[in-house]
Amino acid sequence: MKKITVIGGDNRLKILKTNLEKSGYTVDSLGLYDNDDGDIATSQIIILPVPTTKDGITVFSPLTGRSIPINYVTENTTKEQLILCCNYSFKNRSYVDYGALDSYALLNSVPTAEGAIKIAIENTDYTLWKAKTLVIGYGRVGKILADRLKAMGCDVTVSARKPADLALAEALGFNYINTGQLNFKPLEYDIIFNTVDVKVIEDTSLKTCTADLIIDLSSKGGLSLNVANSLGIKALKAPGLPGIIAPKTAAEILTNTITHIINSYN
Amino acid sequence: MKKITVIGGDNRLKILKTNLEKSGYTVDSLGLYDNDDGDIATSQIIILPVPTTKDGITVFSPLTGRSIPINYVTENTTKEQLILCCNYSFKNRSYVDYGALDSYALLNSVPTAEGAIKIAIENTDYTLWKAKTLVIGYGRVGKILADRLKAMGCDVTVSARKPADLALAEALGFNYINTGQLNFKPLEYDIIFNTVDVKVIEDTSLKTCTADLIIDLSSKGGLSLNVANSLGIKALKAPGLPGIIAPKTAAEILTNTITHIINSYN
Amino acid sequence: MKKITVIGGDNRLKILKTNLEKSGYTVDSLGLYDNDDGDIATSQIIILPVPTTKDGITVFSPLTGRSIPINYVTENTTKEQLILCCNYSFKNRSYVDYGALDSYALLNSVPTAEGAIKIAIENTDYTLWKAKTLVIGYGRVGKILADRLKAMGCDVTVSARKPADLALAEALGFNYINTGQLNFKPLEYDIIFNTVDVKVIEDTSLKTCTADLIIDLSSKGGLSLNVANSLGIKALKAPGLPGIIAPKTAAEILTNTITHIINSYN
Amino acid sequence: MKKITVIGGDNRLKILKTNLEKSGYTVDSLGLYDNDDGDIATSQIIILPVPTTKDGITVFSPLTGRSIPINYVTENTTKEQLILCCNYSFKNRSYVDYGALDSYALLNSVPTAEGAIKIAIENTDYTLWKAKTLVIGYGRVGKILADRLKAMGCDVTVSARKPADLALAEALGFNYINTGQLNFKPLEYDIIFNTVDVKVIEDTSLKTCTADLIIDLSSKGGLSLNVANSLGIKALKAPGLPGIIAPKTAAEILTNTITHIINSYN
Repeated sequence: MKKITVIGGDNRLKILKTNLEKSGYTVDSLGLYDNDDGDIATSQIIILPVPTTKDGITVFSPLTGRSIPINYVTENTTKEQLILCCNYSFKNRSYVDYGALDSYALLNSVPTAEGAIKIAIENTDYTLWKAKTLVIGYGRVGKILADRLKAMGCDVTVSARKPADLALAEALGFNYINTGQLNFKPLEYDIIFNTVDVKVIEDTSLKTCTADLIIDLSSKGGLSLNVANSLGIKALKAPGLPGIIAPKTAAEILTNTITHIINSYN
Repeated sequence: MKKITVIGGDNRLKILKTNLEKSGYTVDSLGLYDNDDGDIATSQIIILPVPTTKDGITVFSPLTGRSIPINYVTENTTKEQLILCCNYSFKNRSYVDYGALDSYALLNSVPTAEGAIKIAIENTDYTLWKAKTLVIGYGRVGKILADRLKAMGCDVTVSARKPADLALAEALGFNYINTGQLNFKPLEYDIIFNTVDVKVIEDTSLKTCTADLIIDLSSKGGLSLNVANSLGIKALKAPGLPGIIAPKTAAEILTNTITHIINSYN
Repeated sequence: MKKITVIGGDNRLKILKTNLEKSGYTVDSLGLYDNDDGDIATSQIIILPVPTTKDGITVFSPLTGRSIPINYVTENTTKEQLILCCNYSFKNRSYVDYGALDSYALLNSVPTAEGAIKIAIENTDYTLWKAKTLVIGYGRVGKILADRLKAMGCDVTVSARKPADLALAEALGFNYINTGQLNFKPLEYDIIFNTVDVKVIEDTSLKTCTADLIIDLSSKGGLSLNVANSLGIKALKAPGLPGIIAPKTAAEILTNTITHIINSYN
Repeated sequence: MKKITVIGGDNRLKILKTNLEKSGYTVDSLGLYDNDDGDIATSQIIILPVPTTKDGITVFSPLTGRSIPINYVTENTTKEQLILCCNYSFKNRSYVDYGALDSYALLNSVPTAEGAIKIAIENTDYTLWKAKTLVIGYGRVGKILADRLKAMGCDVTVSARKPADLALAEALGFNYINTGQLNFKPLEYDIIFNTVDVKVIEDTSLKTCTADLIIDLSSKGGLSLNVANSLGIKALKAPGLPGIIAPKTAAEILTNTITHIINSYN
């Protein structure tokens, strides 16, 4: 069996380390536990955390606060070793960006959707049942979130740009609107969930928006939360929900993804 | 149009008052707003809050903290007036206990179910998706809660006593177990929701319980939360969810119920 | 183990007989197979078919066409023996009318709902998806049928009389209407399913009915199919769907019910 | 407004013609009605039917049986005219193959799924409820069919090849299996629906198949129906379900697609 080093990361990486050990791998760590001193030189596989870095320079290591430069990884590995990273890319190294895998992102959409639902229940004084909701974007998060909201009794409208996505939404029983039309019709919804990363709602369009609550699940944002807030709409950014809401499930998804990559790589 | 007096109550009663005024009724209040001095003698209808009393002596008036004895209502009304109350009964007065109406309780099950789901998401480190859940009791709350949990991707088992309830659960795609069997099989669930008011799970049965979380939605309780907690299970009581989680929806349900009674009573 | 005699019946009774034999019972039959000569005098339990009789005089025996009077059963049994019958009652005999059991009827609602859906797909030139449907009655069949129709993408309206039933339908996301109002509003539906046994729709109300198809799943009928047909609406009666659409499932439901009665009776 | 000629086709094309006329277009036809003599030379748009041809030589014209060569279209049009065809391609002509549009195919998956469900109910002696079903392929038809089957109470397994598709199936609550594994595990399902066009199940694998029914919804087939039938499995091909099951809905989908193309083309 291969030797693996896990560098940095939060509780998900701890659970991942345990899960890999249960599968028979030898796993050490660096910056995950206090005083751990994993040796990447002797490992066939190096696993970097979710996300691999927040500042672009050091590995994300919130549990120990140690400062491990990403360069340390590059300098102490060769092309013969496999690096698994999340939303990062290396030069002249063999790596897989598991954060970019569709299947990984899709399964993480489940805890994201549950977190969004929890936030919506908390931040409104009415039920999801009968609430008019808009889900902007019908990608991975949009598909799962729309499914769950409908099941909770919401009146759900999905926005998308691709005709095939709009057709799928229609076939599955959702109201639908072309994202390009969002600025040309009054935003008469109670709750709006954004899942897309480009600005799709202009600031001026928010003036006609009747929503009480906007939850932004994207990384870069599809609308200005500041403008929304200034107009009296409660507008929240909700990043990283899987690790917050369901670290155990997130760790299992991570374990399955990592294991699948390791097994395919042989 | 009739004149109505609202006595005591929380925000739901304020919204109810506004809603009734919009429908054309003259409505005054007593103990709902500071210094209000509604006159029940001149009202055809007197509305008491949810619940009508907590101590059995005074009307529940949390917003003003005023102490209005229920006797005050009895002494200042005649049989000609209609009293609407919640989980209370009068002697020698014309009253309707709207809290006892199936339809009122059933619609309140929706915010109760949403609140229970929010609490479950908050208090576990995994998703509802794939979680093994047990819903004890398949009455009003049980029916709605089981429906929503299944839609969130839970593996749901429903317990009931009546063969017809078990058959309905089976036909709707739930796992099911006779409530009487709960003490004879290991309680291998991740999350348990109790909705029944008599003790159905013996203290000793909790020893084999694998649940991380028990949420008690009943008023009197179907199991000992203390014993569960002492065994390391997080066990919570969650009363009054509609007023907490969705006061606006709860007020609408109340308004519809009250309006329906008033209209039928003519 | 007890000895059992099965009298008459269709394929469901054949499967029931086999299932009971697999459970260890000695089972003979009369009028179920050609030339069978089961002896009821030596049996502790006598099982009569679904339905027990169609003419009120002889046991329903469609497979052999033999004429076995119900009196034959009465005359050759004592109060010590247990008779299981379906929608029939005896005097001075120990019997259980399993057809009257809620749980038995409820489970049979599943094949009934599936059969109704098959008939609706066959008899319209559009999809159930987006079709406006009315389900009259929210009893056992109504509950299951409405659930399945919504899942197929129908726009479903449920009619009921009891406030608690209307509240359940509302909480589960259906449109709803009081059955008493059906004659006072235009019947603007594409497909109507009737599940109630008393006439709820007046002949004159059918004149404003826009439906293409009416499927009557009740035994006695909630409207006049003749009048509907004369107005150009395709109106069908669909009795006995479980035995037609899914005899194997119907036999399993029957076996479970019969076995449950036998076990409880000891 | 433009002039349009419709050539050949079944009832869907008749409804399409009417719908386009209602929208203000001048529409004539050729081979759709007896003795119609539409003139394609004077039309800006020529609409060919679903499918455009079955023999590769003449336009599909089942209602009139007239033999109109596709060459007739090519020879009497110029590049200035727009030809709309279905699963066909032209050289040196401006054309759109609407049959290849994702959104068109996806919406047609809805009547296909309903037709498949009707066939399954008809051809089994048990209910869909609790039946173990396999849906091979999680493309357009697979996604809609799996959704509907789960809602009918089936135990649904989805097979797919792409990790992202398997992840979506898992997130939406289906059992899942990699299509590549289908030949390496026993096919223990009651009903199998195939939606893929390449052979995915080897003939020898059918020997361990416990299914009572196989419904092939693909055009070319994912397994040998002959071999299945010879092994005692009822195996059916079910092509063209939208036009058979729901011609009106199919015509509406066609109208929306054609209208959308015409509007975008200006």
